[in-house]
Formats: sequence, C-alpha cells, structure tokens
Amino acid sequence: MTEQKTHGGNIYKMAERLGIPESEILDFSANINPLGLPDFIREALISSIEGIINYPDPDCSRLRQAIAVHDGVPEDYISCGNGGADLLFRLAYGLRPGKVLLPVPAFVEYEEAMEAAGARMVYYRMGEDLEIHWDILETMTEDIDLMIICNPSNPTGILTGRDLLLAVLDQARGLGICLLVDECFLEICEHEEAYTFKGYLKSYPNLIILKSFTKLYAIPGLRLGYLLSGDPDLIGKVNRAGQAWPVSHIAQCVGVEALKRKDYRDQVVAVTSREREYMIRELVKLPVRLYPGKANYLFFRAEGMTDLDLRLEEYGIMIRNCSNYVNLGDDYWRVAVKSHEENIKLIQALKNIFQYNTGS
Amino acid sequence: MTEQKTHGGNIYKMAERLGIPESEILDFSANINPLGLPDFIREALISSIEGIINYPDPDCSRLRQAIAVHDGVPEDYISCGNGGADLLFRLAYGLRPGKVLLPVPAFVEYEEAMEAAGARMVYYRMGEDLEIHWDILETMTEDIDLMIICNPSNPTGILTGRDLLLAVLDQARGLGICLLVDECFLEICEHEEAYTFKGYLKSYPNLIILKSFTKLYAIPGLRLGYLLSGDPDLIGKVNRAGQAWPVSHIAQCVGVEALKRKDYRDQVVAVTSREREYMIRELVKLPVRLYPGKANYLFFRAEGMTDLDLRLEEYGIMIRNCSNYVNLGDDYWRVAVKSHEENIKLIQALKNIFQYNTGS
Repeated sequence: MTEQKTHGGNIYKMAERLGIPESEILDFSANINPLGLPDFIREALISSIEGIINYPDPDCSRLRQAIAVHDGVPEDYISCGNGGADLLFRLAYGLRPGKVLLPVPAFVEYEEAMEAAGARMVYYRMGEDLEIHWDILETMTEDIDLMIICNPSNPTGILTGRDLLLAVLDQARGLGICLLVDECFLEICEHEEAYTFKGYLKSYPNLIILKSFTKLYAIPGLRLGYLLSGDPDLIGKVNRAGQAWPVSHIAQCVGVEALKRKDYRDQVVAVTSREREYMIRELVKLPVRLYPGKANYLFFRAEGMTDLDLRLEEYGIMIRNCSNYVNLGDDYWRVAVKSHEENIKLIQALKNIFQYNTGS
Repeated sequence: MTEQKTHGGNIYKMAERLGIPESEILDFSANINPLGLPDFIREALISSIEGIINYPDPDCSRLRQAIAVHDGVPEDYISCGNGGADLLFRLAYGLRPGKVLLPVPAFVEYEEAMEAAGARMVYYRMGEDLEIHWDILETMTEDIDLMIICNPSNPTGILTGRDLLLAVLDQARGLGICLLVDECFLEICEHEEAYTFKGYLKSYPNLIILKSFTKLYAIPGLRLGYLLSGDPDLIGKVNRAGQAWPVSHIAQCVGVEALKRKDYRDQVVAVTSREREYMIRELVKLPVRLYPGKANYLFFRAEGMTDLDLRLEEYGIMIRNCSNYVNLGDDYWRVAVKSHEENIKLIQALKNIFQYNTGS
C-alpha cells in the first residue's frame, strides 16, 4: 500500500496527477471485458446487500456448488479467494515451495507471492518470439517444487498448445513438481475447451488451476477468484494459509449469479474476438512488433519508444508499460481490447504519436 | 473452507441443518451492533457499484485519509486489509515472529494466523476471573517477538486498564517485543478514549493496533479492517505480505462514508450500553457465572451445561460455545448484545431452559 507497485490499472494516481475524474480516463492498462458491468451483476450485488450484516459463509458453499457445475469438478476440488492474487499468496504460504520455475516474462504477482513465502525463483527465459517451446522440459529438474504457466500468457496473450503443456504436466508428475496453470484469461479466449486443463485435475493431483471472475465479468474491484486441485491435502493447506472469511458475502452472491449466464459469456467472447481482430488489423500498420495474442489484450514492442505511456496520457489514455516484467526491455507495451469506440480512440492516438515521431 | 473451523456465526450451516432460511435464525454468536445495517452504508455501497469495473486503489488512498483524520494518526501509519483477520495473517507472514505470547482464553484466529507463519505460541493463562493481572510482566522474556492483547478481551469483554497495559508496553519496548493491541471491539464500548492506545503509536514503534469496521457498522460480510503502527518498516512488511489489492473498491468507499458518521457511532455505543445493562440484569438471575464484560457481548459459565447451544437451537437461536478457546472448558458461552426485542427472546429462552433443567 505505501509501497509503489507497478501493476496495471492504478487510474487513481493518474487521475490525481492529471487533475481529472477517474471516469474520464480511458484505461487500457487493465484487461477487463469490453462490455462493461452487466446488469445482472449490478442486480445480484444489490440483492446481496442485506446479507452483509452476517459473516460471509467461510465454506463458500453455494459458490463452490455453482463452480463445481460450471467447471465440471467436485466441490472439494475448489478453494475460493479474495481475487486470483489472494490465492497466489495462499498457495505460496500453504505449499511453501523452495524453488519455483517460471517462464518469463510473466505477471509480477507470481514472484511477489512466491518470494514473500521464501521461495527462490528460477526462470525459463523465452526467446524473441516470447513463446514456450519444448526445450522447457529440459529445465525441469527434481529440485523444483512448483512451476507456473500462464495460459494464455500475460503479458503476450499467446496460448501454449495442449500437447506441449501435457508433456510438461506428465514430466512434472514424474519429478514430483506441482504445476500451476493460470487460466484466469482463458475463458475470455475463443475455444477455451481446446486449451483448458480442467479435465486433467482428477488424474494429475500435481495439477493446480487458477481462475478468476475479474476479467470475464468486468469486476476487478469486487475481488473474486478460485483455485482448483484434485489433491485434498493441497486444498486444505491453501485454505488454512489465510483467514477463514476471505470472500465477502457480496462476492459470493455475485459469483453464483454470474455463473448462470452462459449467454453473456458467449457474447463477451464474440465481442472480444471481433475487437481484437480490429485492433490487430490497425496495429500492424504501425511501426511496432505485434505478438500473436489470442486474449482480451494485445502486446507489442515499439522499438526505442520508452515513453509511449506518457505520450498517451495527453489523450487521457492509460496503457501498460511492461518494463517491470523480467526479461523485457522498457519499450514493450500491453493494451486491453475494449469497446469499439474506445479502441478507435486508442488506435487514432497511436497513429498520431507514431506519425509525429517518424513524420517529416 | 473444506476445513471445519469453529468460529462464531456460521448461520449457513445451521440454516441448512434446521431447514429454515438464514433470516429466521437469531444469531447471538457473532458480535454485530444491534442497530443493524445503517442506511448510509446501504447508500454508499450502491453508489460504489459502478466503480467495481476498475481494480481497487491498491493504496486505499481516500480510505487511509479518512482513517488518519478519524484516529488522529498520519496516513503512513495505516495498512488496510480484507477484514481484521486478513491483517492478522499479513502481520504474521510479514513479521514472522518466532515466539508469540498470548493471554488465554483468546480469539482463535490469533493462533491460526501465527502458527500458519511458523510461530510458536506461549500462553499467559488467566486465572478464574479471566483477567490480565500485573504478573503478566513476569512472563515477558527477551525471546518473545510478539505479544497480543485484545482489549476488551474476546470472549469475556473485560477491559484491561491503561496503567497495566502501559507497563506492558514499556517493558515490551525494553525487551524488543512488538505488542499488538486488538481494539476491534473498543469503539463500541463506552469511554473508548480512556482505553485506546492510539496516542502511544508515535512514541512506541513496537506498538501495533488492530481495528475493524465489522462490529460498529454491522458489516462483517463486507470485510474491512486496518492496522496502525508508527514503524514504517513494519507497515511495509505487512503490505508486502499479501496481494496488492486486498480491499475491494466497495469496502473502500463504504469505509470512507462510515467514518463521517460520529452521530451514528454515538448512538450505537448508547444503545449497546443500555442493552448490555438489561442483559446483565437478567442473566444474573440465572444459575450462571457472568463475567463483567463491557463490550457488545457477554460471557458466562453455565456449570455442567455443555449443550446450551443445542437447546437454544430449538428456539432458532445461535450462541457461541467457547470450548475451542484455549484454557476454557465446554460449559462457557458467549452471547452478543442485540436489539431489545431479540435480547428478550434470548433471555426468555434461557429462562425456560434453566427452569426445565433445575425444575421439579
């Protein structure tokens, strides 16, 4: 809190710096679904208010029932938390891994959580294409306790294919390594079913999957995520590694309601996909190296341009500088896929900036 | 979550067991203010909804500003969390105390948090009066890293006087011991100003105070608490011991609004005090040993009666069995001070039960 952390999305500081209300900032730094807050979330939230006079259900019973149906897993595979990030810390403190293998660049919260619990990080450094290749198998050794793969990758949005990931999971089991697959952005991608590892939880007790409500339902301010594992001992450790009431009553009620809306999820995936394709078409016209992301965000390098965020601030636009990711220079940028109108504004601003920069 | 924990207030399980809606249960097991959810909280909550499409402010800037004014401390003395219990775990993981001294009986969450972070507990066992006396100074030794005193005590509601607590704080400073004073229930007591240790934060960097919004504003389901310390290094450790966004946007907005309502706080203190006195007058007529609590709950021993909770279930009433507190047998009970109408129902049920038990 007093600590300066460089995560995405601190619109509060930017608003204060620019002297404008937060609502006037176009925030492309946080990857939230482009449809905005759905009405059914608003209604579920309002209906839940009277219940906050009681402690939240520590077991998250109804929420876990709903997740079990949604993800096709038994209820005792599920641990709910105060957002995905809370579960990373609970996992770190509950599992206490000595050594953690992480393909980089990756979301900084993994390292913050693991190092807070005393783990030592070792890296699989992705090459210039920022993809995970088969040589990752060679970096997996018996002294590693936990391995983390984000699928799709954050910040690139690149998906790791099922064959490779399954080989990793297999080898991890043989070596006694737990594999955490972060699928927080997967449900917002097309063809989730072709990539999710939920189906392997039963046969691979060393598999852990992290999921979040944040992105798909546009509710990062509410805090709700969960972790799946077929190992009851691991679920117990995660639960005991933090307080008994991590998930607010409101978040539990909203989560139950959200999972009922398949139509809404389909719509988010379709709109995101259409808008991502639009942005790709426009971004490739600019002097940037665009990576083939499939998520609700896109990642590019603007060689030598290290102040793109400051330039975009003049347009009231916030994007994510990725220089604090391990293995990346300070001219890498990530932008969310937002509504069509907002995306047009970003593209137009980028065009102006690059034109001016390379102009006559 | 899958783990059975015996905290107060799991009305969800009781409702399921009895086959009735939660709203029909009279919950005397959780110590929430008797006035119920205030309208201004409801309104603040509804106004905050649109903001959940953004990540919460990781710095809790506005909330910390409001707390700073309310508690008369600098903003950098404050770390906000997902309820007081979250801060206990963050403190444990951030400070990593080797040995923790705790007067018992005490709130079980202290031990759960400290032991999760690898601490060893040592106890100051209170005598039959369940009060802390001057001999506690003799149990404080240099090998202790942290000491926890809940004021007023949970479960008894007994207040520890300023002179004794100041002697403890002084000696703790000399011995290099951090002292956590849990004041989560203090603001709901009369004469808070005569007991709070906020004024010592500046001169005693080894002092930590825990506070919560839960009880005074009747919002345990929302999750909001904070910790105060004049040691910036300690605040930094607590902040880094967990995720960057522990406090939901909703909880931050509600907290800011709540702190504006001095009139409401005065009213809660007055009503609680009046109702506590009513319950004391009635409880002393029963064959129980009532302890002289000053908080919004009362504590008594009903010698030999170990199933009082089950007997009260027949009246739809839930109370707190205290047998899982260290140093207590299974015939100790804690009841919240609720509204007059509810308190009458509890007293009447207790009268029936004891009459039947000792009757002709």
